Amino acid sequence: MSSEQAGREQQLTDRVVASFDATADPRLKEVMGALTRHLHAFVREVRLTEAEWQQAIAFLTATGHITDERRQEFILLSDVLGASMQTVTVNNQAYENATEATVVGPFFVEGSPLIPLGGDISGGAPGEPCWVEGTVTDTRGAPIPNARIEVWEADDDGLYDVQYGDDRVAARGHFFTDAEGAYRFWAIVPTPYPIPHDGPVGRLLAATGRSPMRASHLHFLVEAAGSRTLVTHIFVRGDELLDRDSVFGVRDSLVKDFEAQPPGTPTPDGRDLGDHRWTRVRFDIVLAPEV
Amino acid sequence: MSSEQAGREQQLTDRVVASFDATADPRLKEVMGALTRHLHAFVREVRLTEAEWQQAIAFLTATGHITDERRQEFILLSDVLGASMQTVTVNNQAYENATEATVVGPFFVEGSPLIPLGGDISGGAPGEPCWVEGTVTDTRGAPIPNARIEVWEADDDGLYDVQYGDDRVAARGHFFTDAEGAYRFWAIVPTPYPIPHDGPVGRLLAATGRSPMRASHLHFLVEAAGSRTLVTHIFVRGDELLDRDSVFGVRDSLVKDFEAQPPGTPTPDGRDLGDHRWTRVRFDIVLAPEV
Repeated sequence: MSSEQAGREQQLTDRVVASFDATADPRLKEVMGALTRHLHAFVREVRLTEAEWQQAIAFLTATGHITDERRQEFILLSDVLGASMQTVTVNNQAYENATEATVVGPFFVEGSPLIPLGGDISGGAPGEPCWVEGTVTDTRGAPIPNARIEVWEADDDGLYDVQYGDDRVAARGHFFTDAEGAYRFWAIVPTPYPIPHDGPVGRLLAATGRSPMRASHLHFLVEAAGSRTLVTHIFVRGDELLDRDSVFGVRDSLVKDFEAQPPGTPTPDGRDLGDHRWTRVRFDIVLAPEV
Repeated sequence: MSSEQAGREQQLTDRVVASFDATADPRLKEVMGALTRHLHAFVREVRLTEAEWQQAIAFLTATGHITDERRQEFILLSDVLGASMQTVTVNNQAYENATEATVVGPFFVEGSPLIPLGGDISGGAPGEPCWVEGTVTDTRGAPIPNARIEVWEADDDGLYDVQYGDDRVAARGHFFTDAEGAYRFWAIVPTPYPIPHDGPVGRLLAATGRSPMRASHLHFLVEAAGSRTLVTHIFVRGDELLDRDSVFGVRDSLVKDFEAQPPGTPTPDGRDLGDHRWTRVRFDIVLAPEV
């Protein structure tokens, strides 16, 4: 590239960045300046053609038009580009041995039922019973009693209750750790499911040879006074989708051993499951201090 | 930032880039990989908060919802971030003394009337008469006869004909250079006008202290066999908007002297304008060779 050409490109970028100089809010000025620099660097690096620019405009337009109160295609786009997970990552700084965060996803809803410790969150959702237990501690290992834990997950058909099309509440609930910081509950073994892929984002995944599937996971939201709130999942060791989760939510430290129990194995709390299989998993949660 | 934290962020970016490895189309793979790297670099640099991420999703959603067949808010967004102009810049490499390109804008329409050389394109659009003349040559100065020149512009009220709400055709036309590569026509003196600013992009401009106004300009599209097609504008020297054109279309080389003529000054072609003011401008166009 000639120095004349490079100069024209850089001068244009500088002019756009400078156009934000009069922004009253210093943070907005910072964000718009950085957005401009990175956007222009992208266009310059790939030498974006005018046809590709047109395609990008058409893609964003289609993404806007499929988005409504129930379908959020821009969030899906952010998810499959890893921008959602990167935002989570920068907002949950690594802190000693604190448990890693991951994406909240679109299926959290307020108002989940309170479940007694050791109770069952499944609410009739189909799936193999899964005993989940662990502790909540601070980074020095001190137990955190009365921490609020909320969990939610898809059923055996890959559906969350909000996707059932009726008002049933299933496979979600919240409870509190006991005096020793321990918790335990019955859930169901999580299964993989696709993100919505009948729109522009699904076509992008298909064109790039990517799967819309999410690795199997169980969502956790953990809150305790004086601690940083943790939003995370646990994943199933051995799941073949772990290294190609469509939204990049997997962290190695969040992959847990879901141990299948032969039919007839006694359950931890004496629950009678007849001759059904069941599974158990342990997830010890470490909360960072509040900033 | 701890090295653990930096490692988590970089590992995530690398994982997303690698997710495009199986893309069949090598260009799509390149573009998506670069888009991912620059998007993540932006999120990491500004330490985007989750509230800001939500604002961005809401902004894109509103931009999608106001966009329809007549209103293209994503193009406006690309324009005010200088991404449209940067795309034009990378696709029109500097070539010796060839005339610089600028954005095509949303007001070009197919099917403009053919005007005889020296004719009037205004079609009754209100505005001060403006005589425009010049030559089309190659970069070595050789005239290009029979080059097709199309021009279009806003009227004295800042409106293009397609904004009139009826079927009138005005202030647009095309013609061909003569055997000496020369052209001449009557137009009207261009005036400034705002881009549509009653939507999300307008709110962004307001929040960042920016004007929605475009500097006054006259559009040119110049085509000739063997030459690179040129889409450009000319601007009016002295226009106070030159250094804050809302879409960054201005290049210094495109700013021309529009010379106001006192009432009664004879016109170049003997046209009788009575005691009206008129203006003249010269624009010599140099085309790069076709790639």
